[in-house]
Amino acid sequence: MKRFQQLSQEFSTYFNINHFPDQPETLYGAASYMIADGGKRVRPVLCLLGNELFGPLVADTWKTATAIELFHNFTLIHDDIMDKAPLRRGRPTVHARYDEPTALLAGDVMLLRVYEYLNQTDPRHAQTLIKLLNKTGREVCEGQQMDMDFEKTPVITPDQYLQMIELKTAVFLAASLQMGAEIAGATHSDQQHIYAFGKNIGLAFQVQDDWLDSFGDPATFGKQNGGDILANKKTFLLVHALANGSGEEKLKIEDLMNSSPADKIEKMIALYKQTGADQAASLAKQHYIEKAFSHLGLIEVAAENKTALLELADYLLERSI
Amino acid sequence: MKRFQQLSQEFSTYFNINHFPDQPETLYGAASYMIADGGKRVRPVLCLLGNELFGPLVADTWKTATAIELFHNFTLIHDDIMDKAPLRRGRPTVHARYDEPTALLAGDVMLLRVYEYLNQTDPRHAQTLIKLLNKTGREVCEGQQMDMDFEKTPVITPDQYLQMIELKTAVFLAASLQMGAEIAGATHSDQQHIYAFGKNIGLAFQVQDDWLDSFGDPATFGKQNGGDILANKKTFLLVHALANGSGEEKLKIEDLMNSSPADKIEKMIALYKQTGADQAASLAKQHYIEKAFSHLGLIEVAAENKTALLELADYLLERSI
Repeated sequence: MKRFQQLSQEFSTYFNINHFPDQPETLYGAASYMIADGGKRVRPVLCLLGNELFGPLVADTWKTATAIELFHNFTLIHDDIMDKAPLRRGRPTVHARYDEPTALLAGDVMLLRVYEYLNQTDPRHAQTLIKLLNKTGREVCEGQQMDMDFEKTPVITPDQYLQMIELKTAVFLAASLQMGAEIAGATHSDQQHIYAFGKNIGLAFQVQDDWLDSFGDPATFGKQNGGDILANKKTFLLVHALANGSGEEKLKIEDLMNSSPADKIEKMIALYKQTGADQAASLAKQHYIEKAFSHLGLIEVAAENKTALLELADYLLERSI
Repeated sequence: MKRFQQLSQEFSTYFNINHFPDQPETLYGAASYMIADGGKRVRPVLCLLGNELFGPLVADTWKTATAIELFHNFTLIHDDIMDKAPLRRGRPTVHARYDEPTALLAGDVMLLRVYEYLNQTDPRHAQTLIKLLNKTGREVCEGQQMDMDFEKTPVITPDQYLQMIELKTAVFLAASLQMGAEIAGATHSDQQHIYAFGKNIGLAFQVQDDWLDSFGDPATFGKQNGGDILANKKTFLLVHALANGSGEEKLKIEDLMNSSPADKIEKMIALYKQTGADQAASLAKQHYIEKAFSHLGLIEVAAENKTALLELADYLLERSI
């Protein structure tokens, strides 16, 4: 088994405890319901791997990984309320299972718990970890707000879109790695590189995710193509096609968005090809992967220490694009 | 001018800066809109007075007072969403002025900012302050959840009600004082007493607030009597009357709650008197005030240092009950 898979299993066992008191049952029941959901635990594993890159795993990294996973779940609870999402990973979302006020409060109490874990780490790095979480958390909120604002904005540039996914998704992956590195005593320069590695892997992953909705193989991808298209979701592809298509192509795209013909998905995919949006996505993904690997290369540790991170990157990005 | 009024003015000036970046404007505009609202700034002033009780004001206390005021505003934004409140202090609430998703996120980003300020204090007490805020914040969430649960619970005991207001309101006043005391280097025992003073003042204030809605002089109180009665709000009076009234009185109260006769307020007030709920409120308030003052008396500093806190307590509780 690969190291990241092993750590993912170990973390799941470590994390599978009561993080909250019993009462009030509605509040803590809702919070526990969310985290019992599982998920891939990518972020805490990144934190553990960030530590292992520079030295043996220490107890504070497990605590920090726990804080990171709780922070991620806090954002999911609140995002689901904001997006009015009924389901997450096949289960009713927290606000659908309980109600919106309880879900909102369960998210709040989960964020407070994040700081309880971080604050229990050694005073030598507690302040640095909290500072990094504060900064990253703020950026994640900014990304979520940009995402919501974009839904009401007629034209977005690809650059604006990339800035949004950087804030909403990529920086938190980056910070997860950096926190592990910080605890392991990595130098400032190495911390910058591991952060940049994580950020660029995150960007590549998000662009890939957008691409897969249109061009992925449903058998490997695990869901039907075109969900984003039917929802008129502003993905990298749509934003790029609207920004770079000819006048006529733009009109066709807008017509498709304002109507729901039976062949909406096929027609939109054809337009993505025609405007070069699919190729732009492949190039962007490739660009970010190269940037990520170049930063990883600059980290001053033995090459074999980097294997686990390379394997994880391959796993996250293996699906053909 | 009394010391607490002077500190309230000084704090308002100190606090009147940009706590957030400019972009995204929707997110930070919403957050800034909330705190521009003013309010009495009671909690940060408690923090400053908690410091002054034990020594001259230091810079970290101002930072902590800022964190405390932001935390209070974070709870208000989220509470207003949960309660679907259209107005606060005569202005549209944040979610009414912006929208619910933006208000939710503005609350989140405000909570993150709380930790940024606390984390900037001297490492000698940053961890203690954060720990106390975590604990108190969790309790405030628990109190809010209990409050929401109570709305769906037919019978609540006065003890349950008092536990709810302790968590939702009183502990945060207590912790505000203790944080100031911690920064000033107060002993553990003195910190316990100042916390207990604040908690009991908070309980007295909340019971008084419930009482004033029915029995206050509208001229002094500043609002019409009976708002809570019309909203069937589970106040100390209602909870007490339902728990201690005779079978017949309980039926009358429930009938009133299920209907809206023109004289609902007068009839309910009569029942509060008849069941002894009004007197129980006066006694409870008196009990908490005595407890608060006895804890203040036990703090080992010169009596003249306590004047400002006594004056503030008098100000908060001066309205006749």
